[in-house]
Amino acid sequence: MITIGPSLMCADMGKLQETVIRLDHSKVDFFHFDVMDGSFVPNFTMGPDILKDLRDHTNLPFDVHLMVDSPENYIQLFSDAGADMISVHAEATTHLERTLQSIHALGLKAGVALNPATPLNTLDYVWDVMDYVTLMTVNPGFAGQKFIPATLQKIEKLKNEINKKNASVVIQVDGNISYETIPEVVERGAEMLVCGTSCLFKKDQALENAMQKLTSFIEELTSTNKMNS
Amino acid sequence: MITIGPSLMCADMGKLQETVIRLDHSKVDFFHFDVMDGSFVPNFTMGPDILKDLRDHTNLPFDVHLMVDSPENYIQLFSDAGADMISVHAEATTHLERTLQSIHALGLKAGVALNPATPLNTLDYVWDVMDYVTLMTVNPGFAGQKFIPATLQKIEKLKNEINKKNASVVIQVDGNISYETIPEVVERGAEMLVCGTSCLFKKDQALENAMQKLTSFIEELTSTNKMNS
Amino acid sequence: MITIGPSLMCADMGKLQETVIRLDHSKVDFFHFDVMDGSFVPNFTMGPDILKDLRDHTNLPFDVHLMVDSPENYIQLFSDAGADMISVHAEATTHLERTLQSIHALGLKAGVALNPATPLNTLDYVWDVMDYVTLMTVNPGFAGQKFIPATLQKIEKLKNEINKKNASVVIQVDGNISYETIPEVVERGAEMLVCGTSCLFKKDQALENAMQKLTSFIEELTSTNKMNS
Amino acid sequence: MITIGPSLMCADMGKLQETVIRLDHSKVDFFHFDVMDGSFVPNFTMGPDILKDLRDHTNLPFDVHLMVDSPENYIQLFSDAGADMISVHAEATTHLERTLQSIHALGLKAGVALNPATPLNTLDYVWDVMDYVTLMTVNPGFAGQKFIPATLQKIEKLKNEINKKNASVVIQVDGNISYETIPEVVERGAEMLVCGTSCLFKKDQALENAMQKLTSFIEELTSTNKMNS
Amino acid sequence: MITIGPSLMCADMGKLQETVIRLDHSKVDFFHFDVMDGSFVPNFTMGPDILKDLRDHTNLPFDVHLMVDSPENYIQLFSDAGADMISVHAEATTHLERTLQSIHALGLKAGVALNPATPLNTLDYVWDVMDYVTLMTVNPGFAGQKFIPATLQKIEKLKNEINKKNASVVIQVDGNISYETIPEVVERGAEMLVCGTSCLFKKDQALENAMQKLTSFIEELTSTNKMNS
Amino acid sequence: MITIGPSLMCADMGKLQETVIRLDHSKVDFFHFDVMDGSFVPNFTMGPDILKDLRDHTNLPFDVHLMVDSPENYIQLFSDAGADMISVHAEATTHLERTLQSIHALGLKAGVALNPATPLNTLDYVWDVMDYVTLMTVNPGFAGQKFIPATLQKIEKLKNEINKKNASVVIQVDGNISYETIPEVVERGAEMLVCGTSCLFKKDQALENAMQKLTSFIEELTSTNKMNS
Repeated sequence: MITIGPSLMCADMGKLQETVIRLDHSKVDFFHFDVMDGSFVPNFTMGPDILKDLRDHTNLPFDVHLMVDSPENYIQLFSDAGADMISVHAEATTHLERTLQSIHALGLKAGVALNPATPLNTLDYVWDVMDYVTLMTVNPGFAGQKFIPATLQKIEKLKNEINKKNASVVIQVDGNISYETIPEVVERGAEMLVCGTSCLFKKDQALENAMQKLTSFIEELTSTNKMNS
Repeated sequence: MITIGPSLMCADMGKLQETVIRLDHSKVDFFHFDVMDGSFVPNFTMGPDILKDLRDHTNLPFDVHLMVDSPENYIQLFSDAGADMISVHAEATTHLERTLQSIHALGLKAGVALNPATPLNTLDYVWDVMDYVTLMTVNPGFAGQKFIPATLQKIEKLKNEINKKNASVVIQVDGNISYETIPEVVERGAEMLVCGTSCLFKKDQALENAMQKLTSFIEELTSTNKMNS
Repeated sequence: MITIGPSLMCADMGKLQETVIRLDHSKVDFFHFDVMDGSFVPNFTMGPDILKDLRDHTNLPFDVHLMVDSPENYIQLFSDAGADMISVHAEATTHLERTLQSIHALGLKAGVALNPATPLNTLDYVWDVMDYVTLMTVNPGFAGQKFIPATLQKIEKLKNEINKKNASVVIQVDGNISYETIPEVVERGAEMLVCGTSCLFKKDQALENAMQKLTSFIEELTSTNKMNS
Repeated sequence: MITIGPSLMCADMGKLQETVIRLDHSKVDFFHFDVMDGSFVPNFTMGPDILKDLRDHTNLPFDVHLMVDSPENYIQLFSDAGADMISVHAEATTHLERTLQSIHALGLKAGVALNPATPLNTLDYVWDVMDYVTLMTVNPGFAGQKFIPATLQKIEKLKNEINKKNASVVIQVDGNISYETIPEVVERGAEMLVCGTSCLFKKDQALENAMQKLTSFIEELTSTNKMNS
Repeated sequence: MITIGPSLMCADMGKLQETVIRLDHSKVDFFHFDVMDGSFVPNFTMGPDILKDLRDHTNLPFDVHLMVDSPENYIQLFSDAGADMISVHAEATTHLERTLQSIHALGLKAGVALNPATPLNTLDYVWDVMDYVTLMTVNPGFAGQKFIPATLQKIEKLKNEINKKNASVVIQVDGNISYETIPEVVERGAEMLVCGTSCLFKKDQALENAMQKLTSFIEELTSTNKMNS
Repeated sequence: MITIGPSLMCADMGKLQETVIRLDHSKVDFFHFDVMDGSFVPNFTMGPDILKDLRDHTNLPFDVHLMVDSPENYIQLFSDAGADMISVHAEATTHLERTLQSIHALGLKAGVALNPATPLNTLDYVWDVMDYVTLMTVNPGFAGQKFIPATLQKIEKLKNEINKKNASVVIQVDGNISYETIPEVVERGAEMLVCGTSCLFKKDQALENAMQKLTSFIEELTSTNKMNS
């Protein structure tokens, strides 16, 4: 099943409450929060207080993507703020297994995020403790970048491994997810789509319309895929 | 002249646009943005996109307080996003003079922020290149902390130095600025008040009312001070 | 051949000399010293002076496990203090080959320690310069943690590689080595057992008795294994 | 009043329990634990488990000297292990005031340690939150170094400030405290003496004798001083 | 085709201009510049101004090998100074794909350098954005080290991958490239030879003679290889 | 006595040997080598091999200015390469006293370098172990920057302290030392002039001529000063 999660960093950040409410009504599946530290990535975006202030306005899952060094230090902070899922970068922590365990210990879903260049064997010994993998399809740090084609084979290879292990691990894709790239990533096994300026937050389109168009597109796509398979 | 700058990290971060518009109408003097990196301080808050999304809704100065390591790397980013003033922590950069110069080079006002324990001689050789000093009156990183009394003598001592040098440097105070502490800090020479949960963002009070009450309080205070001096 | 090495961090650290002497008499095979730096792992334990002060009281090998960043800086220090074997974490150094070479250059055995999540291909090009691999079976930093099951397949896979290469590399396991886990790790190829609170240092048992019980258990286990194979 | 605290890093670390018991009986005033992280200083020594294992054998105060970067991260760990006093290096933390506050919040005495080259104005705004200052009289990291004469004027200057402020802050001195240097440091105002290989832990002398000799020397010294003043 | 690139760090650094002119006339293929930062490797060598001052004296490609942490910060600097090719260490950057893209964006060739111990799967997802791989055959940081035999299989394995993918990626080898090792590395697929004290910069031989001898050796070698294959 | 030291980073780095010989003949007093690490300052320049290759061509003192983090790690390296004097930045090391001592221990002169914004009390407790102070009159990292006027009072204040203490400490100035600034800095007490593009290395002037002009200028200046005082 394909799920859609708006990347709130791409919304009008002056109206996040209204955005969250309208997107909740438009049937998105989760909200994606990108947290940056200026060190792991050269930018800053948001912190736990934004989650707290939005938490009362939707019951949908809050998915926090920590693009920060030593993410283990911030799990509790974001859990307290209302996160339901937290993904950490394998490149940012020397204790990946412990960090994932500590996310689980707080009752949250745990994800591993991988930069475009990071090889998949990074995951070899954490299959028991992760619920999803965030494959970056652009280099993290800024909105509006170009999709990196080499990540398509990575999605495919990861999906094969998941199937071989019969693991209940979901592939999330993040970065320039658009009408051109969605068919490519979905075909190869991506299920959670982080949606930003490339398909959801458009200057000339109401959020409701953008969301409806996107949902229809994905429904059609998946029904075609099913017919083909 | 005493000026008031709401700390937007203390507002409802789901409604920043509305907040900025209402506070602009309520005659605040500037907006204060606290940026944190999880390393210089153990928290995250906001980034340049929030400035960009609010920039069209007010003409008041945007004052960015960089609580981040190596702030020199982010001056351009926040200038592009709409900052009018940027303060950097002396403890966070080995090239304070260059960093202040680079803020000026972009046409912005440059501030030096000092942690509660940092001595004032840190400023000895940057008087030519700074417009304001942000004296932290709590330890930076979180809202809602207790005012540190030792900072009062620091304000006083800094004001004396400013007067002695006849320098056009303004003292900004940041941290638990409240009805109890305002008279203390203003009496000693603070002029820019960063206002957060202690005096402006109150659960049970409309922003307009809170602002009116605060303005009256300060007017009365300053007129009394003038009479006394 | 299975060898037993008490982890001295788990002993009563007020009586290390007595402990070392009694364990030497009880026929342990080596002594294991865990060194922590508060950065690679969030704890501190011991340093070279402890080795020096114990060195005169036993002739058994001292095995130093450096859970520290940039371990290359400390090889000489621990060699001078009496170490016979030093293992360094692959995650903690960008120059693993050089570090292992420098251990050899001092006449010591060189080991590579791997965190639970670290993949085995980390070892691909250091087979010529290592004598043992320390597979962490818990996340390093504290005593008393739970064994991570995914490390069992790692032991097995590493043992297969060793056999295929006909390499004289020994597998050491470290973390919650107990009566339940010993059969599992030994069966898969572990030969050096780091023994702590889970099987050797028990509040209600004399060290001699604990060691005798452990030795018998392992003897029985290995004789059974031989019969089965 | 002059107090004596043995530096346990200078003891035979294989017999710490016995050492603590004998020194307790010999009327030392506190025990000093030096913790090193390989980064702030290029060595390692001991951690919280050593405190825990010794805690039951004496009621004297445990004084922990954290020669580690970001000491704020380890206050709780050492408090839990039995510390009564913790000193942190001003050079090692950007949030000195908060760190001292957090030591107080756990009910412990808080100290600021200063390297030989660190100027005294570092203390300007933490007088309210510190109980003692540890003036390093050698460069920290190793036992057996030469006393740095310039630190004498530092003791004197600090004592003058304490007197001027009428502050209840005690001066601790650490590094090559010997029969030659004790008169010098005591005369200038040092009150807590950290005693290591230079005056207490001698190869050829029983701890009890060394302690008796030292106590007599100090008694004589202070009675002479009183007579002279 | 085998190409030869003198490592200028091995030349007499007081006469670099003359050296570059003479080597240009002697038909070397490119010039290799080793940049060190004292952190990624424990040494310093040269910077962009050396490239600038030599740029007018030859038209041959300048190949810059950045042995520095966070090389992404220095691409522009070396491009401006006259670099034609830049290689960065995979171990030194968390954003390898972005860094390689940024080298391409400036119109330069992009290389990935790998330490002796670094596994080849590091390259799995950057094949589209790299032109060459610098396989270190010694540990980087100093001239005059011993060739590491395990790197031979690495060259071979990488060459196989290149062939399998039909990729236009060239293998550069760097470290103790000599008359003994050249046949070994060339046979396995290395094409760019970084030449230093082991074969080109000899105390007792003019550069022209050393270069002629080397060229003849390689010509003979490659013609033999062709005949054998 | 005023001494002149050419900054070799400002020379044509392709002809350093020739430059050193010609400047030696032109009666400069010392040679100044700027070493950068890309971290303390955002640039790279040169390393120990350049000193080694020039060491045989002059007997004048080699003065190494380490603009690098943790300079204590590189003292031996530059001493071995031929340095006679080494200055380290106070901002770059937490153990300034030990670092200066270790320079002296190798028989070299030890200097403390201060960034433009660094206050002078940094020197309070290192007067016994330093021979010179390098006052940066521009922000370090690049040639060709503008002189910072606030550093003039810093020179004056430091000179006053030296006189008061009757200390044999020399003031070196570094950064945009030109015909305009030399009278200003010399008048206030600077004695060692680091000379770069602003007064010595001129595109349109032979080194010998530039040096002769500079020497005459300084002679005239100092004879005038003497007459006035």
